[in-house]
Parts: sequence; C-alpha cells; structure tokens
Amino acid sequence: MSVQALLAAERAQVESALERVLPAPSSWPQRLHEAMAYAVFAGGKRVRPILARLAYRAVAGDPEPIAEAACGLELIHTYSLVHDDLPALDNDVLRRGRATVHVAFDEATAVLVGDALLTQGLLVLARHPLGDEWAPRRAEAVEAVARAVSSEGMVGGQMEDMEATGQIAGGAGGDPPAQRLERIHRHKTGCLLQVSVELGAILAGASAAERDRFARFGGALGLAFQIADDILDATASAAALGKSPGKDAAAGKLTYVTLYGVDASRRQLAELEEEMEGLAGELEGPGGSLALIAGFVAHRTS
Amino acid sequence: MSVQALLAAERAQVESALERVLPAPSSWPQRLHEAMAYAVFAGGKRVRPILARLAYRAVAGDPEPIAEAACGLELIHTYSLVHDDLPALDNDVLRRGRATVHVAFDEATAVLVGDALLTQGLLVLARHPLGDEWAPRRAEAVEAVARAVSSEGMVGGQMEDMEATGQIAGGAGGDPPAQRLERIHRHKTGCLLQVSVELGAILAGASAAERDRFARFGGALGLAFQIADDILDATASAAALGKSPGKDAAAGKLTYVTLYGVDASRRQLAELEEEMEGLAGELEGPGGSLALIAGFVAHRTS
Repeated sequence: MSVQALLAAERAQVESALERVLPAPSSWPQRLHEAMAYAVFAGGKRVRPILARLAYRAVAGDPEPIAEAACGLELIHTYSLVHDDLPALDNDVLRRGRATVHVAFDEATAVLVGDALLTQGLLVLARHPLGDEWAPRRAEAVEAVARAVSSEGMVGGQMEDMEATGQIAGGAGGDPPAQRLERIHRHKTGCLLQVSVELGAILAGASAAERDRFARFGGALGLAFQIADDILDATASAAALGKSPGKDAAAGKLTYVTLYGVDASRRQLAELEEEMEGLAGELEGPGGSLALIAGFVAHRTS
Repeated sequence: MSVQALLAAERAQVESALERVLPAPSSWPQRLHEAMAYAVFAGGKRVRPILARLAYRAVAGDPEPIAEAACGLELIHTYSLVHDDLPALDNDVLRRGRATVHVAFDEATAVLVGDALLTQGLLVLARHPLGDEWAPRRAEAVEAVARAVSSEGMVGGQMEDMEATGQIAGGAGGDPPAQRLERIHRHKTGCLLQVSVELGAILAGASAAERDRFARFGGALGLAFQIADDILDATASAAALGKSPGKDAAAGKLTYVTLYGVDASRRQLAELEEEMEGLAGELEGPGGSLALIAGFVAHRTS
C-alpha cells in the first residue's frame, strides 16, 4: 500500500470517529459547539490519531477499538492551535486558508473553544474504549497524554517559544540558542507527537520495553516533523503551504533553518529518518506502516 | 467542632497537598510555573477539594488517600478564574484584592496558565491516588470531572453567561430569563461544585445509589452557592467581599437578585439549605460535616 492510500484510509476512519466524539453543533450551547466543529473540521491531516492507530496495529492488530480514544489527540492538538492563534499569542488570522476561530467567531469564544476541546480530548481518553476491562489503560492513557501537554510538556514549549521571540518577558537566561531551540521543539510539537505513538502502545497493552521503543520512535518523529516544518517555512510556496511562508524568519523565530541553514537541517532530518526506520523495523518488521509514515513526515511538502 | 475549625483544619491539608501537585516555581519553564503558583496561592477558600474530602470521609473515613486527587478540583477552578478574568472575557483586573494573572504577568501567559492548570488538574486526577488498585476509580474520576467542566458543563455555562449579558453574539433565542438563569448557574458554577462532592464518593467506592444522593446534595449546594453569591454582590460591602460589589447590576447581568429581588432569593436559599440538610442527614447522620458546610455556604459573608 502506498503511504497516500494508507493515510487516506486511516484518515477516513478518524474523520468518522471525530463526528462521534464531538457534541452535536445543534446542541446547547450551540455557538460554542459550532465553533468547536469549525475548528476541528478544517481539513487537518490527522497525523496524531493516525500515529496512535498505527502503533496500536503494530502490537494488537485492527485499531477499531481505539477509534474514539485516538481522536482525543486531535481535539487536544486543535485546542493548542486555537489558543496559539489568539491575538495575545501568535495573532494569526488565517489557518489552512480559513479565518481562525477568533476571527470567524470572536476572541472570548476562541478562548472557550480551546478550553472545551482540551477538556473534551481528555474526557474522550477517560471514557474510551468503553468497558470496565479497559479502565486501567484509560487511566494510564489520560496520565500519559496530560503529562505530554502539561506545563512541563507542550504548554511549556509554547511558553519558551514566546519568550525566545521576545513576544513576552522572561526567558531562560544564558542557555545557548541551539539548546533552547531543541527544547522548544521537543516540547511544543514533539511531546504530543511522541505521546500519540505511545498512546497506541499503551492501549494495546504493550510491555514496558516495547513502550520505550515506541516512545523513542515517537520522539524522533516529533523532532523530524518540526525540522521539516522549519525547512518548509523557509523554502515552500504559499500555495503549497496554505499559509504565508517566511513568517519565521520575519518574526525573528529561532528555527532549525535560521540557526543551522537549510542544508544542515536537511542532513539532521535524514539522520532522524534513518533512526526512525531502524526503530520501525524493530517494532513491526520491515516495510510496515510506521516506516511509511516516518518517510512521509520527513519528506512532507505541506 | 465549629464549621470554622473544620474548614481551617481541612484547608491546611489542602494547602499542603497543593504544594505537592504543582510543579516547583523554580523549575522550567519558570515564568509559567511562577504564574501558576501566583494564581493558585491567592487565598482561596478551597471549597471544592474540601467538599470532596468531606464526601469521602462520610463513606470511607480519613480522606488522606485522596489528598492530592482532591486538589485537582482546585487547579481546575483556578484555571476557570484565570480565563474568565481575561480582557476578552470579563476583563477583571483584581481578584481577591490582587492583580489578576494577565495584569501581574501578561495576557499570553494568562492564557497558558489557564491551559496548564486545567491540564494539571486532570493529570492529578489521572495519577492520584497512586497504585494499580486505584486505576479504575481514577479513570472514573477523570471522566466525571472532565464531563462536569466540558462544553456541556462549566464552559457551556460561561458561554451562555456571556451571551446573556451581550458580551458576545448569539444566545438561546426565546428561552425565558428564569430558565436561562438557572441553566447558567447550574452549569457555570454548579457543575464543578456538584462533581466535587461526587468525586469524594467515587474515590471512596460508594454504591450507585449513594453516589446519586451525593450528586443531589452537590447540585443543591452548587445552586445555593451561586444564589448566595448573587445576594452578596447586591448587599455586601467591598471590604467584606474583597472585590467591587454591585458589578452584576451595573453590567446588566442576569442574577437571582436582578430577576427575583433580594427577599425571594433569600427564600430560595433557605429552601435549598433545608434540602441539603435532609440529604446530609441521610448521608452521614445528623450534625455531620456536610450539614455544617451546607450551612456555611448558605450563610457565607464573602
């Protein structure tokens, strides 16, 4: 199966499960639920739930039992985008070619949409898969994902990113830029991608040693994802990207490209790809889905 | 024991557990962790964790095993205050006599503080009490609390409150004011207070029938808490309140007092107090702690 066919099939499953885990836009409070649906159904690639599904499959087969739980990751990812776009943070008016939530609705609604999506994401993980026999794994899943997006994870990375660009006061004093950059990336985007892979392993009942390998694969994938993002921002066209390229350099952002240049960033990405392929081979044998998605992330064009 | 002595003793336990469940302000990312501690250690009454502890005690005795878990409620309550105070929402600059988080730090930090406290609150519930034997109850606890603060709970109430005051567009069309008011209160403050009581019962392993009685007690307490708040806003002095009184009427807020007047609101409160005392008697026998706290909530002066 080509990676495109694999991702399309997985994505269709995720879209249909997302419909099931979000409150109906027609239910009270309507405007909030409409805005949540607007934010979630905006054409995302659904990378995080797909990663959870593929990791689950590598251990336990058909990921149908975790269809809903995997969506918790997408709700949490969407919350982080909605809040990052707020005027007080990145002040973005466009995302995936559409008005951001605070522009399409209003700022107060955007704050509450983020709050509600974060809550719903962890609620979905606490509730699914249904059945008492899954309860211990559900508790473990919530703990792992909440830790990954906590102040010591994703939110911490967002905080340091804003400090590093001078958007807010404070900062990490004398730490060298390369160290700050890796810390920002590992946390801001890496933690959630890494725990997406781990979630599949947790729900599949993987052993501690197996979980550790999945976590290492997810860690490399998270970093590769961000380096590819930095390279795209510096090299891709607006049409391919669906947003304005070159924003990072213009904003004085610390990125792999502004720090190391495009060529060295590409070399780092190639090294991570090799590492991921090795780990994927250990986890599912050669030529499996995890290797496919590792290549996709390293070579993505949007 | 007087209610004051009971609350002081319980509160001391909560304060010390709160120190244990928050990341150290000196740890990365420092500014974020400092701001989280600033928000949490601001002299709150800790009503929600205390309710969970008293409910636990009524079923299972000494609440020491749930010391950390109960704090999850306070972190979530604090998140809701930090976000409600934001310029785009209630735009409050003072809370409990101190600058609100977005004033003392900045708006971006306040958004992230709220996000991080919500996450930490649910993380604490997923993690505590420690030990595999508690895992099923932890999953149930996260589910109950997340549902209570979801878009169909607390955040939904905040959304409708803002719609009702015209702060944002939208609204519930032709519903009569009395119905909207009760819906706002039941959700905005009631859901979290109610689930605080339920959490104690869940973690204590109460039967479904018992849990239902705790939930009814918590529901009445949540509504009583808000009616008392409305009466205080209309009648108390700024010194007693620690914030500006009369704000509700000035802002055109829908409250029990603006809708029914002070006397009728006091009568409703007295009825709720009677209902709570009856339920508390069933749950813990006459003269127990839950009855004490019910009286405290109905007669609070700040």
